[in-house]
Amino acid sequence: MSHNSFGQLLRFTTWGESHGPAIGAVVDGCPPGLALSEADVQPWLDKRRPGQSKYTTQRQEPDQVRILSGVYEGRTTGTPIALMIENVDQRSKDYSEVARAYRPGHADYAYDAKYGLRDPRGGGRSSARETASRVAAGAVARLVIPEVRLRAYLVEMGGIAIDRANFDDAEIDRNPFFCPDPAAAARWADRLDAARKAGSSLGAIVECVAEGVPAGWGSPLYQKLDAQLASACMGINAVKAVEIGDGFGAARLSGEENADPMRPGSDGPQFLANHAGGIAGGISTGQPVVVRMALKPTSSILTPVETIARDGSATDIRTVGRHDPCVGIRAAPVMEAMVALVLADARLMHRGQTGR
Amino acid sequence: MSHNSFGQLLRFTTWGESHGPAIGAVVDGCPPGLALSEADVQPWLDKRRPGQSKYTTQRQEPDQVRILSGVYEGRTTGTPIALMIENVDQRSKDYSEVARAYRPGHADYAYDAKYGLRDPRGGGRSSARETASRVAAGAVARLVIPEVRLRAYLVEMGGIAIDRANFDDAEIDRNPFFCPDPAAAARWADRLDAARKAGSSLGAIVECVAEGVPAGWGSPLYQKLDAQLASACMGINAVKAVEIGDGFGAARLSGEENADPMRPGSDGPQFLANHAGGIAGGISTGQPVVVRMALKPTSSILTPVETIARDGSATDIRTVGRHDPCVGIRAAPVMEAMVALVLADARLMHRGQTGR
Amino acid sequence: MSHNSFGQLLRFTTWGESHGPAIGAVVDGCPPGLALSEADVQPWLDKRRPGQSKYTTQRQEPDQVRILSGVYEGRTTGTPIALMIENVDQRSKDYSEVARAYRPGHADYAYDAKYGLRDPRGGGRSSARETASRVAAGAVARLVIPEVRLRAYLVEMGGIAIDRANFDDAEIDRNPFFCPDPAAAARWADRLDAARKAGSSLGAIVECVAEGVPAGWGSPLYQKLDAQLASACMGINAVKAVEIGDGFGAARLSGEENADPMRPGSDGPQFLANHAGGIAGGISTGQPVVVRMALKPTSSILTPVETIARDGSATDIRTVGRHDPCVGIRAAPVMEAMVALVLADARLMHRGQTGR
Amino acid sequence: MSHNSFGQLLRFTTWGESHGPAIGAVVDGCPPGLALSEADVQPWLDKRRPGQSKYTTQRQEPDQVRILSGVYEGRTTGTPIALMIENVDQRSKDYSEVARAYRPGHADYAYDAKYGLRDPRGGGRSSARETASRVAAGAVARLVIPEVRLRAYLVEMGGIAIDRANFDDAEIDRNPFFCPDPAAAARWADRLDAARKAGSSLGAIVECVAEGVPAGWGSPLYQKLDAQLASACMGINAVKAVEIGDGFGAARLSGEENADPMRPGSDGPQFLANHAGGIAGGISTGQPVVVRMALKPTSSILTPVETIARDGSATDIRTVGRHDPCVGIRAAPVMEAMVALVLADARLMHRGQTGR
Repeated sequence: MSHNSFGQLLRFTTWGESHGPAIGAVVDGCPPGLALSEADVQPWLDKRRPGQSKYTTQRQEPDQVRILSGVYEGRTTGTPIALMIENVDQRSKDYSEVARAYRPGHADYAYDAKYGLRDPRGGGRSSARETASRVAAGAVARLVIPEVRLRAYLVEMGGIAIDRANFDDAEIDRNPFFCPDPAAAARWADRLDAARKAGSSLGAIVECVAEGVPAGWGSPLYQKLDAQLASACMGINAVKAVEIGDGFGAARLSGEENADPMRPGSDGPQFLANHAGGIAGGISTGQPVVVRMALKPTSSILTPVETIARDGSATDIRTVGRHDPCVGIRAAPVMEAMVALVLADARLMHRGQTGR
Repeated sequence: MSHNSFGQLLRFTTWGESHGPAIGAVVDGCPPGLALSEADVQPWLDKRRPGQSKYTTQRQEPDQVRILSGVYEGRTTGTPIALMIENVDQRSKDYSEVARAYRPGHADYAYDAKYGLRDPRGGGRSSARETASRVAAGAVARLVIPEVRLRAYLVEMGGIAIDRANFDDAEIDRNPFFCPDPAAAARWADRLDAARKAGSSLGAIVECVAEGVPAGWGSPLYQKLDAQLASACMGINAVKAVEIGDGFGAARLSGEENADPMRPGSDGPQFLANHAGGIAGGISTGQPVVVRMALKPTSSILTPVETIARDGSATDIRTVGRHDPCVGIRAAPVMEAMVALVLADARLMHRGQTGR
Repeated sequence: MSHNSFGQLLRFTTWGESHGPAIGAVVDGCPPGLALSEADVQPWLDKRRPGQSKYTTQRQEPDQVRILSGVYEGRTTGTPIALMIENVDQRSKDYSEVARAYRPGHADYAYDAKYGLRDPRGGGRSSARETASRVAAGAVARLVIPEVRLRAYLVEMGGIAIDRANFDDAEIDRNPFFCPDPAAAARWADRLDAARKAGSSLGAIVECVAEGVPAGWGSPLYQKLDAQLASACMGINAVKAVEIGDGFGAARLSGEENADPMRPGSDGPQFLANHAGGIAGGISTGQPVVVRMALKPTSSILTPVETIARDGSATDIRTVGRHDPCVGIRAAPVMEAMVALVLADARLMHRGQTGR
Repeated sequence: MSHNSFGQLLRFTTWGESHGPAIGAVVDGCPPGLALSEADVQPWLDKRRPGQSKYTTQRQEPDQVRILSGVYEGRTTGTPIALMIENVDQRSKDYSEVARAYRPGHADYAYDAKYGLRDPRGGGRSSARETASRVAAGAVARLVIPEVRLRAYLVEMGGIAIDRANFDDAEIDRNPFFCPDPAAAARWADRLDAARKAGSSLGAIVECVAEGVPAGWGSPLYQKLDAQLASACMGINAVKAVEIGDGFGAARLSGEENADPMRPGSDGPQFLANHAGGIAGGISTGQPVVVRMALKPTSSILTPVETIARDGSATDIRTVGRHDPCVGIRAAPVMEAMVALVLADARLMHRGQTGR
């Protein structure tokens, strides 16, 4: 409905620009009585925080969250939870060039075409800085679904995929790429270094797995859990593709190959495969929910590109300033947050309709 | 919000099961004064209608639409338009097996887990028959965006992709597969025949291009046009992946390769490429909007698969009955309808906020 | 959100015009497993049905409801429930005058101003006939709140109020006015007869009491249960005022007089008064919920009134045709339905957020 | 949909408690390019500000608003506008009694029943302090409808009504009661002084007139402009009744008396009366829109009232602390803001659907 909100029973609204005084989120519909303090939110923001390695933007933002409402004596009250993060390190002088001409592939031209004006400082509202608000909101959503374990990680960067045989869960937090394959992480480091030095940028594919989702969450058709997850992930900056389970790969399988056979299990059915990514008919099956999304390489690059100026004349643009050479890296905690928000909302919706 | 509605200003709600007396859609928020009769809707339904070749289900449904409200003297009145299609050819006897046990990969188990009961006749609400309601609603949406030309077609079936060099727009309506490449169509015919005879099924990839969308439709972030299209397409039965423009391919490009350079044009900018699929920052750029979606092979197959019965015991199931060996074929008109509904809604939303 | 829907988790959408082939409602979000057949809906429609006394329009409509979806083997499936009522007795010839000129006080002029056209047959979408769809939807809502007992009745007609000392619950169904005071009913009969013969019409005030609503339903502020009830009732044709509990009367009390003192009770608090109408801070308190609404006299009268024609010229209009001399009478079952829909939705929303 | 949002195309969400660090609103969907600075918002907040006379709470709040997003170089950008107001004067020590026992008529018991806990400091979320957020949001809405002139004023306090013959628009801002009748204002001063000294409180009736609303805004049925206004006003703290135009009075008129006859005018029809309050069939007619609402006397009074404690035992409560003896006074600017928000949203919705 409104442009900057997401969710139904658990609904959040974000606001703020890259170079305004602050950004924030209002989380509405949260169940009452959940233990919540800033210490529950901060660790997730810290995972997404820029400036932690040479592979992300050098903008220095402490990303300290404040909870301004909705909590009393350490418990959620059921009323809206306002989360605010101040912007500390804005250097608006960097952006005069962006005000003059459009970065191809960026939102610049489209915003001007839609609104007739735009805030060019750091991309304004279209900046990936907005995703900090989502991570903060996602931290609240996690409290609603304590039974669910979420992990997002990169499975491909700059065309180099991980080797699934090397998959090591513990490795994800050991390298600056949220990469579960140490060998791939090393190759990515080289590749990204080269791109950064060349004034270029790289794309990436991020995967998120949610374990512990019981069968029955989600809805048929327009609110298929797949559709909600697709909407949630495609709404993240730079994302241009989303798939559930085998996704595009499923289109190449036969009906027998793609079936996820069932056997009696101790606690509901046991599935012998998970091509469906944990969702059938739009409803969770009890298997792990698996989502994958692709991020394009950022269009803010040092290499000059042909473009037009606001006055319509031909020009070239190269984007000086501080940018992530691969926005896919910091998208991993953002994806986790969005998946958490979808699942928490689905849980409340399911409980509302069915009482379970 | 509700589970069976889609859209914001132009909003439709569908109802009906495969083997109930009828299915239908209510389209709300349509602009007044548009010329509309059943003759405007029927041709689109006819494109989706089953039983037109040996490659689709043999269920015979005339799919005659009736407009029950919202039109006076051939013009939309601005009040809700009720569209109804009677179900004619139901053979409920085919479905006792489905009532007894779960088809792996189908919605059967998930519905039971969610609702505690389900309508097993033809898949009930989860049947692809529901998509006829979308096609009818989409016909109304087309009236709202007369400047947009939509075209959906298959680009891959059973792992066989078209050769883009052979792309012939006129070919799409000449074969039973909505295939723009006559050579691929011939190979698909053989492949699908073989699958059908083997009691198997195939997946497919469908692409939709919308030409004539002006710059400025859509919104940032949670209502990115990409996100709305992803939600719309992922909500179609059997769809498990959606991408915009280069989609997953964009993740393998460098920033320079992925940029869509701009030059001054006679009517707004001229773009030298369209990796972004006509959408930047969630807002249309004036280039063709390009969406692609993957459909899994249907899980209703004759080949027996291991499963469990409702009582939890181990069993096998083979799905006798009438089914599409490749649901991707008839998904092409459905995808066109959904893209039309998204774009028409985006147009009204844009006009509401900006007056343009 | 959309114009012809109401509710959040339990949401219904209506369609249809007075003189189209049918009218109907789609109820979405209904909990699964509830026993539902047409026999559960028909009695409520019969209460609202026209032509049952000389005090309502003589249009003869059987108002037979059909359930077209959402029910399997006598149980709701959790998917949308489509309810349809055919229009049988349309006499379009009566309405040429209405097409030519605007009835003052009616929706005629406003529709033309908004949409640029309108369906003049029987008032089209603005006809009170639409309320049959609400009554049908309300019958479904009742199943969701079996613990609640609803009762709507007239407390005033044509300026004659009931005497609360005479209040007799059993009397409500014994007279054609849903009047709980037999003495008032007799006076109303005379008054309405006189108005009818004079080609005039009367207004009325209807009250609805919901007993058995537990404490905790509803929400603060914008979704105060009071606000939801106000919206629900004010959305009924001809309603121009709504109040909760003492309503306008509360503005004349002092803080001490208006307090509803509490004493310990066997099952939650015992209240010594109910000025608040069962709602405090937007949330139910466990006391009976009390709502009152006022309906203006219908503007379709035989007495000529000064007006303008569609072409802007001055003219007079008198509305020949079949009309209720007091639309407030048949509004009682409609009000019950709307209150049921609000409470059922509030129950599901409460359960969704809190698990209770 | 969500509990703390209001509006559709122009949608705002509020957050914050009486004794938290701040309160605020996020206004989403605002048209781009409108001139907006804090100086456009502050005057409306100043009208509502407490502590300006002995007739309102003595809490001293500067109510300085900050705009944190959505504005660039003095123009709205079309992205969310975050408005924040810091709480300065909280004295939490006053509220231990309220934490112990329930104030009859207040939200205390209902919140506990719903959420299982509540923030007792100043009423937490249920405090009328929240209405400052609405006033700030309303200031943005005013920019969307510059053609509309809004005026809210009290027409009754403590049972003393104004004399319409004395109505003087200029008087409204000359007394501390927003009273258009100087004679009534003098009587109210005495009455309220007496109530205040007696530890009691008074109710009030507030009226809002919107001039300049063109014909065509609003929608039929569930989104009748009457219904949106009713929901908006009934959602204000302490409001228990709303009426449009003649409201309850219309129920006592005959059809002829209640008709608003039309004559040809220079610019659309000229109406000879306005019983309908400017709305017919849910759509504006071009006449002034007239809304009235009743506020109960506040339940926070010094006079002891029988109640129960949280532990269920019988007790008495008297509410020490700083409270408005008549919350109706400061409700006038709040009502203006809510009516502005409804009309601005209706304008955008109308433009979206019809292009006008």
